[in-house]
Amino acid sequence: LIRQIDGSTKVYAILGDPVAALRSPQVFNALFERRNLNAVLVALHVSAGDLPKVWEGLKALRNIGGIIFTMPHKVAAMKLMDTVRPGGMLAGAINVARIERDGRWTGDMFDGIGCVRGLMEQGHALSGGDCFIAGCGGAGAAIAVALAGAGVARLVLTDVDTEKRDALLDRIAKAFPNVRVQSADAPRDPFDFAINATPLGMRPGDPLPFLPETLPQHTVIVDVVPKPEVTPLLEAALKSGHRIQPGKLMTLGQAEAIADFWMESDARRDDQISSTQ
Amino acid sequence: LIRQIDGSTKVYAILGDPVAALRSPQVFNALFERRNLNAVLVALHVSAGDLPKVWEGLKALRNIGGIIFTMPHKVAAMKLMDTVRPGGMLAGAINVARIERDGRWTGDMFDGIGCVRGLMEQGHALSGGDCFIAGCGGAGAAIAVALAGAGVARLVLTDVDTEKRDALLDRIAKAFPNVRVQSADAPRDPFDFAINATPLGMRPGDPLPFLPETLPQHTVIVDVVPKPEVTPLLEAALKSGHRIQPGKLMTLGQAEAIADFWMESDARRDDQISSTQ
Repeated sequence: LIRQIDGSTKVYAILGDPVAALRSPQVFNALFERRNLNAVLVALHVSAGDLPKVWEGLKALRNIGGIIFTMPHKVAAMKLMDTVRPGGMLAGAINVARIERDGRWTGDMFDGIGCVRGLMEQGHALSGGDCFIAGCGGAGAAIAVALAGAGVARLVLTDVDTEKRDALLDRIAKAFPNVRVQSADAPRDPFDFAINATPLGMRPGDPLPFLPETLPQHTVIVDVVPKPEVTPLLEAALKSGHRIQPGKLMTLGQAEAIADFWMESDARRDDQISSTQ
Repeated sequence: LIRQIDGSTKVYAILGDPVAALRSPQVFNALFERRNLNAVLVALHVSAGDLPKVWEGLKALRNIGGIIFTMPHKVAAMKLMDTVRPGGMLAGAINVARIERDGRWTGDMFDGIGCVRGLMEQGHALSGGDCFIAGCGGAGAAIAVALAGAGVARLVLTDVDTEKRDALLDRIAKAFPNVRVQSADAPRDPFDFAINATPLGMRPGDPLPFLPETLPQHTVIVDVVPKPEVTPLLEAALKSGHRIQPGKLMTLGQAEAIADFWMESDARRDDQISSTQ
């Protein structure tokens, strides 16, 4: 149950296809409730080809608060923005848009920030860390960028698509000259964090993306796959005595960061409104 | 508090400007809850000039359930529809749209139906009734049409704009040949129902639209003005011993009729989906 919606409720939306299994309405409406905001987030089912006209309509709403884009809109959404923040540029996609005080829309990518927040909230120090990431798709790219931004010392990336992997290594190397970037087929060094950012584990019978037992005891094993909560990788990690971070924490950590991003802009807009009154 | 919104929640919206004081989100979300529907209605703040592009965007949503149009969109919305039902054509405006099984949008006007439902739910027989309506604007026209459709015998209309009044008399006479239509400056006959459909009573100091004390005891005095709940007209009517119907009942009666209109189309669409599987 969430706060009663009235005529003053600010409207937020997550745009995707499909939408039935999305958890964002529950997560954000609970978050708005906790923050005592008169706001609601609804899931809008939008086919890929309809995104531009839906976006034109949403932009015209005077009580729209912000938008989340999920599959299949993350790359296309970047083109709709007036401004894209560095995290989105580096990831090559965005998943959140907010309206600025001048009416322009800014996009950013939070898929990686959620992972980083989850780790920090569990008390793990990221600065100077040594990290392995399996998978250089949208999630992997976003996590690599977020970890680089959080000050890790080294990022070792793997992907079956070596071209995609090398392109990401190159982008990160250029954007974060202080971070050592390398490629590797499997995590063989004493990494502090070993992260699965592939879809392996979503379907029964998937092979493990890597073997936790080959890693030292201090390595934190992270999975982005949100369902089941304890994936086969995390199950193996628990068996070998490692600390873990399930995909759910990434989603929750991302929600807080997205809400902060939205509210920051709201605060500036409210400030502008009161200063022009 | 309303039902938790999730990814499968069907989305309904009321489009208006302003929206802050609208009561439809509360009324419809409670109604959806009572009917055990996974649906939510939100208010969308839309300027008059933005209606066409917002409409294009809303039409593209695959989980949109239906739309309510309120001030200032009721006349403009009629032009956006693929089909307008007779109630909307006669009133010259619509306030509700639904999507049909073939994807076409149908509009109708419920401002009058709410009034009629309210009367019927209070146990008043309308068939053969003798009715006076003050005001031939959107609300008055819709109520006149709904009363004619409910089988009243006579409609006596008044409006300071005699051209508007005569045009409405003419439309009703043509559409409902069995209903006697006339104009009058004040209710002087033994009417069964005397209805205020003017905005008189919304602002303190407004004159009464007519004097209940001049009407027989059996006349039911109806006001469309929703706030205050007991308007000066209704206060006078209670003082002279008449039964009354406040504007709130019209809003509530309309909500049930609108939901029925939406669900009727949903049922046909669900039927079509199962028959093609």
